Amino acid sequence: MTAQAAGLARFSINQMTVKQLSLPELVAGCTELGVRHVGLWREPVQAYGLEAAAALVRDAGLTVSTLCRGGFLTAVEPDARAAAIDDNKAAIDEAVALDTRVLVLVSGGLPPGSRDLHGARERIADALGELAPYAAERGVRLAIEPLHPMFASDRCVVSTLGQALDLAERFPSEQVGVCVDTYHIWWDDRAPGDIARAGRGGRICTFQLADWTTPLPEGVLNGRGQIGDGAVDMLHWRGLVEATGYTDPIEVELFNDGLWARDGREVLTETTERFLRHAVPPAA
Amino acid sequence: MTAQAAGLARFSINQMTVKQLSLPELVAGCTELGVRHVGLWREPVQAYGLEAAAALVRDAGLTVSTLCRGGFLTAVEPDARAAAIDDNKAAIDEAVALDTRVLVLVSGGLPPGSRDLHGARERIADALGELAPYAAERGVRLAIEPLHPMFASDRCVVSTLGQALDLAERFPSEQVGVCVDTYHIWWDDRAPGDIARAGRGGRICTFQLADWTTPLPEGVLNGRGQIGDGAVDMLHWRGLVEATGYTDPIEVELFNDGLWARDGREVLTETTERFLRHAVPPAA
Repeated sequence: MTAQAAGLARFSINQMTVKQLSLPELVAGCTELGVRHVGLWREPVQAYGLEAAAALVRDAGLTVSTLCRGGFLTAVEPDARAAAIDDNKAAIDEAVALDTRVLVLVSGGLPPGSRDLHGARERIADALGELAPYAAERGVRLAIEPLHPMFASDRCVVSTLGQALDLAERFPSEQVGVCVDTYHIWWDDRAPGDIARAGRGGRICTFQLADWTTPLPEGVLNGRGQIGDGAVDMLHWRGLVEATGYTDPIEVELFNDGLWARDGREVLTETTERFLRHAVPPAA
Repeated sequence: MTAQAAGLARFSINQMTVKQLSLPELVAGCTELGVRHVGLWREPVQAYGLEAAAALVRDAGLTVSTLCRGGFLTAVEPDARAAAIDDNKAAIDEAVALDTRVLVLVSGGLPPGSRDLHGARERIADALGELAPYAAERGVRLAIEPLHPMFASDRCVVSTLGQALDLAERFPSEQVGVCVDTYHIWWDDRAPGDIARAGRGGRICTFQLADWTTPLPEGVLNGRGQIGDGAVDMLHWRGLVEATGYTDPIEVELFNDGLWARDGREVLTETTERFLRHAVPPAA
């Protein structure tokens, strides 16, 4: 195995990073570059066809590191809550079909007009009580992803790894864990301790990389930086996560209007190169 | 005293909220509305003249709740560090001239190309070791303001109230405390406990209000919401701060392009009304 192949053995490309590629284009690119894992999103998988997508990926010898995403569990109104539960069960079923063991959850923001963060977090716990056994029975774990605090009102009231663990630890570790994403936690001086806590409890379902670059764009959603372009020390965070014994794939998940405007295969190649340069430790 | 006058007794308008007003216009507006406290910024004070500004405010019977801002203490290069220390000493002298006891510090972001948050935080502590005695000898306290984590790379590596207290507590409480600003901490489930910790230690130098509204604008600096427009429960946070015994002014500090585009007197009036409606508890 070449050094490049060894370096990429753990690399997973999240589909959103190169969303301009069709699923066959993504799979072909991975095969060509020696990428062995992909993180998929529900919407493009559904558009391609769930079974067809599963076959395409499986036949290429790729594994699906995660499915993104379930969640949005903070609604108050009963019909909306029931619809969210149903949709998350469908996402779990899709994860099974894709043969991935991890469904990433973006928990949801405050309902319109609400200022009750605590109540929203408790509604997430209530919903997990119903979803977690359903997922575990099917061999899928729910990965609570803390999102950066700038998303607390409109996207995810779970803002730190500590909060995510407080939620996850109400359930068995084989049912609920966390998603560790550098973009969301890099600023947090408690995150290294929380990674160790997550590792001790067997709670790290997946590890994702994105860099922090400024200025943030309007709406702040699509400004995640290419690996190496920003403030995040990737080897530092990889070291912390791997010190817990984590050996699963490491996904690069970027939402970036600039990257999306470029040729998708070029971005895929660049992302593998950046991973090798900034997120793979020098050989011993 | 009318109910409105009682409600406004603790209110302070931070100059930046209505930066389109000249200092005489701001003072006249405060007099007319019964506002008794102002938070001032160095640049407009210098433009008007330090002694003239001090006299204008004093003669109108206003107190200066805070001076904004010192800080930016994270540079590595010796000349830049020396210049920052000198500039902060000048800010302390200006606070003395304005007869305010609080200089708010925005600590500074990562130097260009750096990914070392810990090192940057330690350089802040080093600088405080020189500045804090200088300030205390002149009757001024340094208020470390944690800024929202979305500013961690480019503006302030101190992102939580807990971090700010970790820094402040290295120094005597009469020298260094913290600025509690709802905009920066509202998402943090540890902030209530940290407010209590700050209160026990006598560390709350000032309490500021701004609301959290989305979508955030490009660059995210000038999107602080008018009181009542967003996700922050003002009475909740006021209650937590006052439970520690805090009785000093409560500043409203908004950076908002929309408010700045409007008539400044109208915004000043609106802000007092919003404070009374959303940040003053119902009379017992």
